[in-house]
Amino acid sequence: MASESKVVEHPKKAFGWAARDTTGVLSPFNFSRRETGEKDVAFKVLYCGICHTDLHMIHNEWGNSIYPLVPGHELVGVVTEVGGKVEKFKVGDKVGVGYMVDSCRSCENCDENLENYCPQHTVTCGAKYRDGTITYGGYSDSMVADEHFVILIPDNLPLDVAGPLLCAGVTVYSPLRHFGLDKPGMNIGVVGLGGLGHMAVKFAKAFGANVTVISTSPSKEKEAIEHLGADSFLISRDPDQMQAATGTLNGIIDTVSASHPISQLIGLLKTNGKLVMVGGVAKPLELPAFSLLGGKHMKNVSIYTPTRWLMNHDKIQNVLTCINFTLFVGRKLVAGSLIGGIKETQEMIDFAAEHNVKPEIEIVPIDYVNTAMERLAKADVKYRFVIDIGNSLKEST
Amino acid sequence: MASESKVVEHPKKAFGWAARDTTGVLSPFNFSRRETGEKDVAFKVLYCGICHTDLHMIHNEWGNSIYPLVPGHELVGVVTEVGGKVEKFKVGDKVGVGYMVDSCRSCENCDENLENYCPQHTVTCGAKYRDGTITYGGYSDSMVADEHFVILIPDNLPLDVAGPLLCAGVTVYSPLRHFGLDKPGMNIGVVGLGGLGHMAVKFAKAFGANVTVISTSPSKEKEAIEHLGADSFLISRDPDQMQAATGTLNGIIDTVSASHPISQLIGLLKTNGKLVMVGGVAKPLELPAFSLLGGKHMKNVSIYTPTRWLMNHDKIQNVLTCINFTLFVGRKLVAGSLIGGIKETQEMIDFAAEHNVKPEIEIVPIDYVNTAMERLAKADVKYRFVIDIGNSLKEST
Repeated sequence: MASESKVVEHPKKAFGWAARDTTGVLSPFNFSRRETGEKDVAFKVLYCGICHTDLHMIHNEWGNSIYPLVPGHELVGVVTEVGGKVEKFKVGDKVGVGYMVDSCRSCENCDENLENYCPQHTVTCGAKYRDGTITYGGYSDSMVADEHFVILIPDNLPLDVAGPLLCAGVTVYSPLRHFGLDKPGMNIGVVGLGGLGHMAVKFAKAFGANVTVISTSPSKEKEAIEHLGADSFLISRDPDQMQAATGTLNGIIDTVSASHPISQLIGLLKTNGKLVMVGGVAKPLELPAFSLLGGKHMKNVSIYTPTRWLMNHDKIQNVLTCINFTLFVGRKLVAGSLIGGIKETQEMIDFAAEHNVKPEIEIVPIDYVNTAMERLAKADVKYRFVIDIGNSLKEST
Repeated sequence: MASESKVVEHPKKAFGWAARDTTGVLSPFNFSRRETGEKDVAFKVLYCGICHTDLHMIHNEWGNSIYPLVPGHELVGVVTEVGGKVEKFKVGDKVGVGYMVDSCRSCENCDENLENYCPQHTVTCGAKYRDGTITYGGYSDSMVADEHFVILIPDNLPLDVAGPLLCAGVTVYSPLRHFGLDKPGMNIGVVGLGGLGHMAVKFAKAFGANVTVISTSPSKEKEAIEHLGADSFLISRDPDQMQAATGTLNGIIDTVSASHPISQLIGLLKTNGKLVMVGGVAKPLELPAFSLLGGKHMKNVSIYTPTRWLMNHDKIQNVLTCINFTLFVGRKLVAGSLIGGIKETQEMIDFAAEHNVKPEIEIVPIDYVNTAMERLAKADVKYRFVIDIGNSLKEST
């Protein structure tokens, strides 16, 4: 399904690094960007974060990559030109663009500032605008975007850390806010400690939560507590630890994309507890529905009252098998959340600037990008690569 | 795990019908109830609904039945005596008791009027009070309960229909309220058209919703629309019908206890849509997590953007298989809900009385109860049996 783009010659020359085919190898690439329209903001790109999505796209793992593909949807820089009808930005402003550069602006979701759920939202790289032209991302020297999709970076937030907030940051900030997991004193769990997970710890701490990191890797405990500021740590493979924490959490942000059991996580929740998935797990998860309803959990006794509605007599055995690791209370939910809307992204970055919430980054030059991709594939980064576009991207032709 | 109760001789004689063993056959039974305590309300039972739970309990299907077992947790009648410290009731009041007769009254859940999620809540029949004595249910001539767990039945609500509201009614009313699915004009789906489902249709209609019944049985369409007042009907096994309804519902109350696919149901939801399970499905359900996150669904194209976080390269094929029946928008959730708290049960019955929400019942005499149980096991009832205790229960010894 990969396709060659019908390259439209735009008036503005641009330069970046692109993947040319499914090998995913990135190399210098000359292309063009549209003229700055009356509602557009043009900016010089200074930094761009490397998201796991970039890795998938350069290898056409989802079957929809358009080559040559300039990745990058965590780009920040300085405004160089604004269109005549631009109201929110001026030349010299520090700005950024995240995962989206367009949406229909007229559907129910767009009306509610949820452009991220607009059926017609256009992603920042490797996709097509509604006019059929190709989107090129932030591994490049310049950007042009409608001001609606441009985020103002507060002056006190260093530009190098701003990029990852625009995707990883809002992806965890949005569900913490939307699902009411942002109240001081709440007990919040974070599953997985990668690019998303470490931001979830930081935002939850900034909201005043007691944060528990839940991980399969005991080796991450020291890092989670001493470096990232988590309050406690649970090894998800240790049944005793998990059992002891039954019914203690108000909410969990689950950032893991690999298939993993969620029944234990549901068991950690209090009544009204919320497990929010932000990682798109491929294989369907096993959801023991009755564990969401609630009821008594009597240890060492095979009694489980909420199954009282069971109608399939031949399924009784399943019930008795399932209950051994379930819960205590009830009315729980499992939800999903995808990035965040533009208004919320601006709120998030303002909050991050005010509360000093910054991603942990490793700054690399553009000619390190292929190595960075290899390391990212092995999760060998704490916690986000950011390309120093301003100082390292030089036109080679 | 069935056990013989250590029968405590209470001062008050009582009479009902009980199951004596796992055959589940009910027969006349003399027992006793406690003296009316200072916070207790005693009442003469006039009607008692037959819930599916009763069927499971008389056969000891959950392994925790205590014999002799007097079923019934949808009992209503008239107050005959009140304790000295009772504040809310007086002799002659019409009252009822639902699924619970006790809880700890001091935990976080009890503090929030969620006794139904109290780890120590005591069910109305076949269980043990915290003092070790046995609870006997409503297939009997009298009841004594702490006033906190007694519901006042409004004068304009006929007693015969009041019983099923105390369990089936609040089980669907509570999630409609709690999850904000009670707003006029909302599009609400109801899966399954049994005792719970038909009440969900009626409450959702009373809230002003457009109600869609979703069922595997085309034969239920006429009944759902013409008799129960649903606005539309979807056959869940018809992919074309389901596809056409993608992204149209604000919420779904799923009352089915048999194992069933939920990915299609999730597909029916709009952004922020909520699938609430009130049936305790035994076998874990398959939950495609990414379908909760959201994104574009392009028909006839195997592209699914929200899977962009996928990290397991070897799982790609699963993604491409899964997307064929998924969704359009995002930030959806799957939740569970279990009965309702006492305060909410009172609100529910007041609402039902005000808005003329009544279950559809078939009134039967006590000596029909074994036949009723056989019919209930075959789902041969529209939609709830109610035993006419007042006119048919006669002491035989």
